[in-house]
This record gives sequence, structure tokens and C-alpha cells, in this order.
Amino acid sequence: MASEKVRRPRAEPPKGFRDYFGAEVTERKSMLDAIAGVYHRYGFDPLETSAVETVEALGKFLPDVDRPNEGVFAWQEEDNDWLALRYDLTAPLARVAAQYRNELPSPYRRYAMGPVWRNEKPGPGRFRQFYQCDADTVGSGSVAADAEICAMLADALEVVGIPRGDYVVKVNNRKVLNGVMEVAGVLDPADPEKFAHERGIVLRAIDKIDRLGPEGVRALLGEGRKDESGDFTKGAGLSVAQAEVVMGFTTARRDSGTETLARLRELVGTSTVGAEGISELEAIAALLSAQGYGPDRIMIDPGVVRGLGYYTGPVYEAELTFQITDEKGRPRNFGSVAGGGRYDGLVKRFTGQDVPATGVSIGVDRLLAALRAKGRIGGETAGPVVVTVMDRERMADYMTMVGELRQAGIRAEVYLGNPKNFGNQLKYADKRASPVAVIQGGNEAAAGTVILKDLILGAKIAESATLEEWKDRPAQVEVPRGDLVAAVRRMLGQ
Amino acid sequence: MASEKVRRPRAEPPKGFRDYFGAEVTERKSMLDAIAGVYHRYGFDPLETSAVETVEALGKFLPDVDRPNEGVFAWQEEDNDWLALRYDLTAPLARVAAQYRNELPSPYRRYAMGPVWRNEKPGPGRFRQFYQCDADTVGSGSVAADAEICAMLADALEVVGIPRGDYVVKVNNRKVLNGVMEVAGVLDPADPEKFAHERGIVLRAIDKIDRLGPEGVRALLGEGRKDESGDFTKGAGLSVAQAEVVMGFTTARRDSGTETLARLRELVGTSTVGAEGISELEAIAALLSAQGYGPDRIMIDPGVVRGLGYYTGPVYEAELTFQITDEKGRPRNFGSVAGGGRYDGLVKRFTGQDVPATGVSIGVDRLLAALRAKGRIGGETAGPVVVTVMDRERMADYMTMVGELRQAGIRAEVYLGNPKNFGNQLKYADKRASPVAVIQGGNEAAAGTVILKDLILGAKIAESATLEEWKDRPAQVEVPRGDLVAAVRRMLGQ
Repeated sequence: MASEKVRRPRAEPPKGFRDYFGAEVTERKSMLDAIAGVYHRYGFDPLETSAVETVEALGKFLPDVDRPNEGVFAWQEEDNDWLALRYDLTAPLARVAAQYRNELPSPYRRYAMGPVWRNEKPGPGRFRQFYQCDADTVGSGSVAADAEICAMLADALEVVGIPRGDYVVKVNNRKVLNGVMEVAGVLDPADPEKFAHERGIVLRAIDKIDRLGPEGVRALLGEGRKDESGDFTKGAGLSVAQAEVVMGFTTARRDSGTETLARLRELVGTSTVGAEGISELEAIAALLSAQGYGPDRIMIDPGVVRGLGYYTGPVYEAELTFQITDEKGRPRNFGSVAGGGRYDGLVKRFTGQDVPATGVSIGVDRLLAALRAKGRIGGETAGPVVVTVMDRERMADYMTMVGELRQAGIRAEVYLGNPKNFGNQLKYADKRASPVAVIQGGNEAAAGTVILKDLILGAKIAESATLEEWKDRPAQVEVPRGDLVAAVRRMLGQ
Repeated sequence: MASEKVRRPRAEPPKGFRDYFGAEVTERKSMLDAIAGVYHRYGFDPLETSAVETVEALGKFLPDVDRPNEGVFAWQEEDNDWLALRYDLTAPLARVAAQYRNELPSPYRRYAMGPVWRNEKPGPGRFRQFYQCDADTVGSGSVAADAEICAMLADALEVVGIPRGDYVVKVNNRKVLNGVMEVAGVLDPADPEKFAHERGIVLRAIDKIDRLGPEGVRALLGEGRKDESGDFTKGAGLSVAQAEVVMGFTTARRDSGTETLARLRELVGTSTVGAEGISELEAIAALLSAQGYGPDRIMIDPGVVRGLGYYTGPVYEAELTFQITDEKGRPRNFGSVAGGGRYDGLVKRFTGQDVPATGVSIGVDRLLAALRAKGRIGGETAGPVVVTVMDRERMADYMTMVGELRQAGIRAEVYLGNPKNFGNQLKYADKRASPVAVIQGGNEAAAGTVILKDLILGAKIAESATLEEWKDRPAQVEVPRGDLVAAVRRMLGQ
């Protein structure tokens, strides 16, 4: 037959998407299951919305934009509606909280876990589909709701394998920053709209403190800053004294919560909103302390500035405090794995009603990386016992063996490839990380026995220079056929 | 302030999409977890591909179609690539099997669970996002792989709560039908392309046997059929005798597998492919019987015709045999909940190589409906214990109570709404299906006690005409604060 040039599709996922195999799937699943167990115990109910929302409900875009897929994957339906893949789990929650406001309990505690999609330039380690794991309380303005989320976050970290002492949940409050901004002269309680532009610059500046350092932020609070490329960013125009008040906020943390609160009280002076923010922080600390969550687990730290522009009250962030080695071989703290806070306007877009809400989002991939760094996951996972096929006419015998092993709860497979080359079967068992191979040729069948090959021991012997330590443990045994299950169990150390 | 007319977004998901709340999420998850446990024990590895594939890899469409989103949700990227949401879990498996053909073990046993998307007209109970749960073995041409999938399917049904006797896995074989088609004169082994058109009509006709009945199928096998609207569908042009051979195939099932096979042997006459199909069915039955899967669980039934046009060898379908009452009040069998078979060309599109594969897909929603019909799920699920707030100044005390309950593994919440109206708190507890409310007012606090209200008992008393049966069980008790956890446990019957 003449060879025909066929145009074949590329066997690749789209750029920025990836596949997850075996342990990558089960490790994430185990982690999410453990977190869901904590959320459940706290009375949170699962909610699963679909991947697709109307662009209108997502509310990211102006109605007159022709092709509103900036940042999201969006497409136009034949009936002209624009649909999009959700970019987080908060926007669908807002839609649900509005749609079912008469049916849902109020307050409504819900958790959600699942993939979200971002139409962004993919980069190394940056994917366009990734998991989020959120818990939110909608309809409670009480700081008890914030305290609860912080306690739940601490419990969740411990249950997945981050021991106490290796994490801290840091709490800050946007209202304290507002008080500081009053003192710094960029917030006028009598005219909340005034200085909005300057406050925007202040918020963006302190959000960049990790990257720019204190001097960079000071420059942006004052006249402005020229970056390395020579571009100039205009600053908020604060005087040096005013800028110091703002800078003082980010470094207000002291050795104890009481001292930190005292320092914040100095900074906010007579500001009403500032005082309110401080008493919220006090209340949160008191509620948590009553339940045994001391500052070793949850602490007040005004250094938490991420998201202060978005949140409206308490803000929290879970940081892992153990050290890892970065790409350049230097030790550094692992850093943030979860964050959240209180936000307004969740439901208001839909209903016009103010509905307070507070919630947290756990960075699933970051936390998995942390567990891997701690050696909690990612160890050798044993594959299935492999029953080899010595005689293809006796497939029923081999399937019976594998059936008995499975009945006993042992993960097991019969080799289903072409059995002609026995070496291929052992290579297959190796690829499957199989702990034990079961072999029964004609002689064993006649003798009523099976041979069990300890593949883990075999691999160790192959690696080890001295055989001394293994000589009492044979890597291969012949046992009566009736002892198959018991002997495999012994070899697996069960 | 003047009321301003604001254009608000509709709080609705797109048409054909829905939200899943609470038990709807956890029941599905439990079912999938149980199935995954079986798949795992059989040596199948999880694979999670992303929701998005290139349209090219999905391979549903001609390259010259301008807007290739017929049946799928598709959109064009800025770099002109067309992307789409996956419409099943088989197409991504094909892509992965081709992409990683050098890394994956061969044979490759994989399972996948997750949503898929169909851009179809939504209807009652028909959604555009739904779950699939698949297991496939790629790279084995052995019928042992088919037998294994059938056994695994039976195990999976039992593990989720379909008792033995309430299901049967039926096995058929496309090759037997090919033999029958040879006898019926629409397949010439010497010229496989000949009569392709007629065979297409035959395949479509028998696929419709449930809807059209035997007479309708006979008409389509012969000259053709006029439907109720008067439209005429041209038939395959078989003679009455030839058509009877095909009809004989669909009704070849006898009381035992041996008798069924004997009848099929008559039907396929001297056809080589027909004989091959029959010996495959024999081999499957023998392999399964050796493992204890008798015809009460897995049987040969040539009446399984669904998908025969797609599959190339053994075909299987799991049917639930218990009766339910349909919309019109008539009893009928529950019917199919899973199906699969052997198919070629999975990887060939990408690599040009023939890779045999066989697999099954469980209809997640159908199986959930079956479990609901059997009363295995969907019972009353108890909500959390609700600790009410009598005195908002003592929130720390209430949170301490709830903390103790959670520490003891009891699902519990403190009421986080406005505590002013106590009736609202009990209404909230009711909406949460709370089994127990915990109450501590000033008197109880002073006395060092708490009141526990048995809300389940309370509801029963409210329903019941005679109070007699409840009078010895008080619906409300006052216990020492220190006994909170133990007393709640007692009330929950733990």
C-alpha cells in the first residue's frame, strides 16, 4: 500500500494546561478531603457551582466591550450571551448567595473546592487551570465569623500535616489602616471620596513592600519613585512625617498582641474607624484565646498588607514558618499558603442589598508544595502486586489469583500485555513500582505452588554493595498456592 | 438620596447549568470515592486532564469549519488556536496515551472522574455539564482486559450499594454481529469496504430497537420505514430471510450462556469473524466464572446492541434489574447505568499506530438516581449542633462550647447572625436541620449549666397527636456546663 501523508493532530494539551497522574491526583485529593473534614465539622456546607457562568454574573467586564475575555476564557453563544469559565470561587458564591437568598440559611457557611481558569500568559509553574479551596461565611457582620475562619484555617493546616509551630495565622485589619490614613491626612471621615486617588497610591505602595522594600514604599508614599528601567511612578505626595505614620503601621508588630495593639492605638490617634479596627482585632484575639488559639498559632500582625485594598475589615494570612532552600540555594521561609478577609459588596451587585461576608482561600498547589517540602507526601508509593503470565492458556488461573488478592484488599493486577517476553513483564512491574511479582510456571502449577518475588528487596540488593544485610531475607520464595494471600501480605509487611 | 436606577446582573447560571448544594455534593463524592477504591484495587491509576483541550486534539471537527463549536463549547484564542471544553473523558485519554506513550506503562490502566460539557439544547433533567466516571485499559488486546472491566464494574456497583441480584452486566460482541452480517449478505470478508452503506443502516436500525420495536427494525432492515410524521427512511434492502438472521442475533439469548453461544454459532454459520467473536465471549465467560462471577452477575446477552456501531469487539452494559415506578405510575426496570466496550483507533489519530483499548463509563447521575430509588442515599442528613447566643457579650463562652464540641468530632456551629431575636436563632437551627440546640442564658451561666434542646424529638412531638409516647423523653434537659460534650453525645445517640 502506498504510504499516505496524513495530517495528524498534535498530542498536546493547550499551552498553560497540564495533566496530573497517579499520586499527583490522590495526594491533592487526600489533602482536600482532610480540609473538607475540618470545614464540615465547623458547620460549613459544600457548594459546587458549574465551571461556566455568564460574563454578566461574573461581573468583571463592561457591557460594551466587544470581546470581554481579558483574563478569562469567554465565548459568545448563538443567542448572543457571553459565557465564561469561572476565574475564582468567590464570584459564583456571590451569584448563588443572591439567587438563593430566600432559601439559604443566614448566615450561610459554605465551602467550595475545584478548578478555576485564568486566561493569562502561562509561565514556568504558572498554569491557566488550577485548584482553589475556599470557605466563606455570608451574612454575618460579627468578628466572631472572622475569628472562626482563622481557627478553622489553623485546624485545616494541622490536619493536612503542618505541625503546630510550623505555621502562624496573621491577622490585620483594613480599618486600622484607614485610621492611619486619617492621621496621615489622606482620609477625611467627613468626605470619604476625597483623597481617593492618594489612598489608591498608598494601598498599592504598601502592597508592594515585599518587592520594593521600605525605601521603595517610602518613595511612593512621598514624591514618587524611579524604577530600574528609569520609569517614574508618581507618589501619593505625603510629607515625610505623614509617610512615617503609614510606614509605622506596617512595622507595628511587637512581641505580644497587647503591645502591638498599644502601638496601633498610638498610630491611629483619635480616628474613630481606627479605634473600631483595633477593638475588632482585640475581640478576635480574645475569642480565639478563649478557645485555646494563642499567639503561637494566630497573631495580630499589621505587617500583613496583601489584599488590604480589596478587603474592608479583618484580613488574615497563613504563613508557613519553616525554612526551605530557594532556587539559589539560600534558606528562606516558605511563606504564605492561604489568605482571606472580610469584604462587602458581594451580593450587592445583584440585589442592591449590603451583605457582609468573610472568607479564606487556601492555595492548594502552594500547600501541596509545602507538604512535599516537609516530606509529608511524595514518598515512594507502592504500586500493585503484579501477577505475571507464564502460560497464556492458564489466564483464568492468574486472574483467579489476582481476584483473591483484591478480595483481601490487596491492590493487584494481572499482566495484560503480550506475555511472550517474560523480561517485559518484569520491566512492567518495575514501571508500576510493584512491590511483589507473582510467578507460576508449569512446574509450580504441577507442584501446587507459586513463586513470590520481593521487588523492593530485590531493588535494594541490586543497589547495595554488600549483600550481608540481606542474606537472611530471600528476595524470592516459593509457597503453596493456598498460601498466596497470606504470603503476599507477609512480604508487604502487613 | 435620589434612588438611582442601576442595571443589575441577573443572579442565574447560564441555561443548562446548575448548582449542587450540601448532600448533593457529598453523596456524589462518596459514591465516586467508593468506585475509585475499587478501581484502585484493580491497579487502575487516576488521571486528571484539564477541562480544556485543543479542538484539534478533540478531533471532532473538520479543519475548514469556521466556528467548530457544534456540540462543544469552543472559542478561538488570540493566537488563532481553537480551544474547547472536553465533551467526554475518552478523547483526553486518547491525547494522553499518544503524548506519553513512551513514559506510561503498557498496558496502561487508568481511571478518570470529572465533569464534561456538551453544548446541546438543555431540557428537563438534561444539563450541559455533568460527571463521568471512566476506567479504561489501553494497550491490551486480550479479552482478559475486557473480562476484568466487567468484573470491576460488578464490584463497583456492589460497593456503592447495589446488592447482588439487583444488577446484571450483559456482554455482547461486535464481531458476532459482523459474522451475522456476513450471513445476511451485507459483509464480504474479501472486500471489507463493500456494503458499508447497508451495514450502517443495519447498525443504526438495531441500535433503535428499544424505540422502534422489532417490526420497526425489520422494516429498516428491509425496504424501509415510514414514521408517524410520514417521513420515509430507506432501509438496508435485506430480504426477509436475511433480515431474520439479523433479528435472530438480537434475540439469541437463551437460559444459559452455553445455550446462547450455541444459538449464536448457528447464526454466524461459517463466518470466521463470527466464530472469533463467539470464542471471545466464551473466553470472557470462562475467565469470569473462574473468579466466581457467574451469570447471575455477568451474562452473555446479544440483546445489548447500544454502541455496537462504535465498538469493535466485546461490548458490555450494566443494567439494574429492580423495578421503579415511572412518570406514568407504571412499574418498569431501572435499566442501564454503565456501558463500554473495546474500541480501536484511540491513539491512531495521533500516532498512526494501532493501540487496542477497552473501557467502561459509569453514568454518575443515573447511578445516583438508582441509589436514591433504593433508599441508599437521600435520607435525612443531620445538620450541625447549633450553639445559640443569648448574650452577645459572652460570645467567647459560646465559641468555647462550639470549640469543645468540634474537638470531640461533633459537627457544631455558633449562631453568627444578629442574636437579638431568639426565635430567628431557632428558625436558623431548623433550616440547618440541627439535631440539638445549646442554650445558655444568664441564669444558666450563673448556675454553671447549659440547656440542650432535642430538636429532632421536638419536631416529632410537634407532629404527633398523642404525647404519650414522648412523655418519658424530655425534649429539653439542663446539664452541668462540664457535661456539655457528653450530654450532646447522648442526645445524638452516639
